[in-house]
Amino acid sequence: MNITEIKSYMQSVGHEARAASRLVAKAETAVKNRALIAMAEAISRDEQKLLIANAHDLDIAKTKGLEAALVDRLKLSAKGISSMAEGLLQIAALADPVGEISGLNYRPSGIQIGKMRVPLGVIGIIYEARPNVTADAAGLCLKAGNAAILRGGTEAIHSNQAIAACVREGLRAAGLPETAVQVIETTDRMAVGELITMQDYVDVIVPRGGKGLIERISNEARVPVIKHLDGVCHVYIDDQADFDKAVKIADNAKTQRYGTCNTMETLLVHSNIAGKVLPVLGEIYLDKEVEMRGDDAARAIISQMNPATEEDWSTEYLAPILSIRIVANLDQAIDHINRYGSQHTDAIVTENYSRARRFLREVDSSSVMVNTTTRFADGFEYGLGAEIGISTDKIHARGPVGLEGLTSQKYIVLGDGQIRQ
Amino acid sequence: MNITEIKSYMQSVGHEARAASRLVAKAETAVKNRALIAMAEAISRDEQKLLIANAHDLDIAKTKGLEAALVDRLKLSAKGISSMAEGLLQIAALADPVGEISGLNYRPSGIQIGKMRVPLGVIGIIYEARPNVTADAAGLCLKAGNAAILRGGTEAIHSNQAIAACVREGLRAAGLPETAVQVIETTDRMAVGELITMQDYVDVIVPRGGKGLIERISNEARVPVIKHLDGVCHVYIDDQADFDKAVKIADNAKTQRYGTCNTMETLLVHSNIAGKVLPVLGEIYLDKEVEMRGDDAARAIISQMNPATEEDWSTEYLAPILSIRIVANLDQAIDHINRYGSQHTDAIVTENYSRARRFLREVDSSSVMVNTTTRFADGFEYGLGAEIGISTDKIHARGPVGLEGLTSQKYIVLGDGQIRQ
Repeated sequence: MNITEIKSYMQSVGHEARAASRLVAKAETAVKNRALIAMAEAISRDEQKLLIANAHDLDIAKTKGLEAALVDRLKLSAKGISSMAEGLLQIAALADPVGEISGLNYRPSGIQIGKMRVPLGVIGIIYEARPNVTADAAGLCLKAGNAAILRGGTEAIHSNQAIAACVREGLRAAGLPETAVQVIETTDRMAVGELITMQDYVDVIVPRGGKGLIERISNEARVPVIKHLDGVCHVYIDDQADFDKAVKIADNAKTQRYGTCNTMETLLVHSNIAGKVLPVLGEIYLDKEVEMRGDDAARAIISQMNPATEEDWSTEYLAPILSIRIVANLDQAIDHINRYGSQHTDAIVTENYSRARRFLREVDSSSVMVNTTTRFADGFEYGLGAEIGISTDKIHARGPVGLEGLTSQKYIVLGDGQIRQ
Repeated sequence: MNITEIKSYMQSVGHEARAASRLVAKAETAVKNRALIAMAEAISRDEQKLLIANAHDLDIAKTKGLEAALVDRLKLSAKGISSMAEGLLQIAALADPVGEISGLNYRPSGIQIGKMRVPLGVIGIIYEARPNVTADAAGLCLKAGNAAILRGGTEAIHSNQAIAACVREGLRAAGLPETAVQVIETTDRMAVGELITMQDYVDVIVPRGGKGLIERISNEARVPVIKHLDGVCHVYIDDQADFDKAVKIADNAKTQRYGTCNTMETLLVHSNIAGKVLPVLGEIYLDKEVEMRGDDAARAIISQMNPATEEDWSTEYLAPILSIRIVANLDQAIDHINRYGSQHTDAIVTENYSRARRFLREVDSSSVMVNTTTRFADGFEYGLGAEIGISTDKIHARGPVGLEGLTSQKYIVLGDGQIRQ
């Protein structure tokens, strides 16, 4: 397609999405759930078809010489397919957020004011070559009463189209318009440029992927973006920490998984407890082959530690590397986190009530924790059922974004003939 | 100042605001209230100074030949000054939103998850020549724990500087940094261009003013914008409406004030009741010199009605003009509102339960009302205490925006050593 054709194709996708969003917004809960269950059934039934489409994508990826990590994310297994179906059934089981009324109270004028939760309208989702996102995003958007326009990574186009066929089948089975979830058919990058600037047709963009992709989209979008940039997460071990909890948490936050955004990248330790806790942690990290980079005080305790540079403090390694700093007190810890962190997830380990209370209030991150691991920061663990991403923004949605983040609230006013004087 | 000087001045304002925002965010409620009360006292005490500064602005405005409506908004009276002080005292009396924890529940893993309300950081407010906005915006931003950068209309610069001096005095009296509320000292338009693109220093922009100003700012901003565009508000009189309520509401919604965004601009009437209700309403409107513009069916009932054009249905008159359309049923009314309205405020008059319920769910506006007047759509009437504006966006804040709209929520997680398996 040339640029004119892409523009016209995208405008038509947007127009269809807007029309479908009106019907999905007023669809009854049971109808949306029926669609979600039918999607799950189609995905389970089509396991072989999906594997064949995915094999096709994998062949092309190998021919192109894509790096192993990307191929790994692209690959769909039978287990992955059954997880996708299971995810859709879980979304069907979640409470419907649409129409929920809260805070309906009387005012002195006699009118009642409350808020009703409503869909956002049309959600555009731009993601890399992870086919499972197609099903997850379709399910979450539908349950929240929105139409979705999905733009997955080029490398996953055949897998995504096969999943999209199952999604459409589910919509059809429930009597909903198939255009409620549209997967963009062209892999041309210009289609993304159109998607993020169609203010009349798209209400919010959720980009999922690398930092470069997200920054580019944020800069060029004319539509609001719910975005997730870095996860430079901290654990601060206070000198009034319980020793066992501190070791368990600092181990788990770094080593349970290395490549996730909620993994600890910097460990801060109070100078009074560093001599006691760091040698034990150092053993664990060395044993698990985690490279440590520390300031002078930390290196004086653990000799097998490289010096940390200024850049280390703001780096998201996504790898078995950890920076370590000794701090004199809670203030230094909070200052370090607010200065170098990415406002994602930060934890304190302490038994001191007042310090825990201050840390919760003063650390300006989307998730702030006491005596637990940063690895808990995700939609499933928080009870959102599923997540469309983790927002590091402050506007609209912060932290893991589930169904609620895909909705808004309008005011409702109930009167009995009252007028304004 | 030349462009380089303005850039450097604005960067310095932004830098100071960011630093101040950290202190204001953790300021105790009593300290913020003390500042608000001291601001109010300074404003009351300086009544004469403010009147003199305002007279200076008015002189210049008259020399420049500014239009009467603008001069009217610019003018500060002794009563206006006392309202400003009263407004600050009211904000002091509101509950502090910052730090409020909600929904703190246990998860199966044993951790507790909840949300804590937190300030947004630095709010930039761009407004026209209404000096009272300077005090209102300063008060709301401070109470919500934010620093503010205010950029008022050029014509009000002396009035704004005089009010700003009172605001600074209040901050100082409470031991808060004076830079927590900064009024931009240059009237150069380039300063606005800087303000709305300083992503590192400004978290959200609230433009207040005409549609042209707001559209320009929204298009050029690189910082999120909470905006209010048109108020094309509707009242729909259903055929099962109570006759007296219908007349009272349709009268009040149009004629109580003409120039406000929540004034009704289009009246929709069910064809079964039009013959009964329109003649009575027509008398009222004629009596109050409201120009009526209707479709053919409405004009067949009221002869003194001009024909409405397609453009009328989407026009915000802000004047004693009303467009009137006869509809066949509720669906036509909802379709008309969702198509031509501006998603601001719309009301149905009906005694029919099912139609009221459908109208509330299906009309996609920031305020949806039953049996009351659109004129109630404002922060004071809704019990927000005050408002920084009315948002016609769906993202972050919708409808009247008070203290809550100037905050965000972060997740807090309380554990007892739990780690992720």
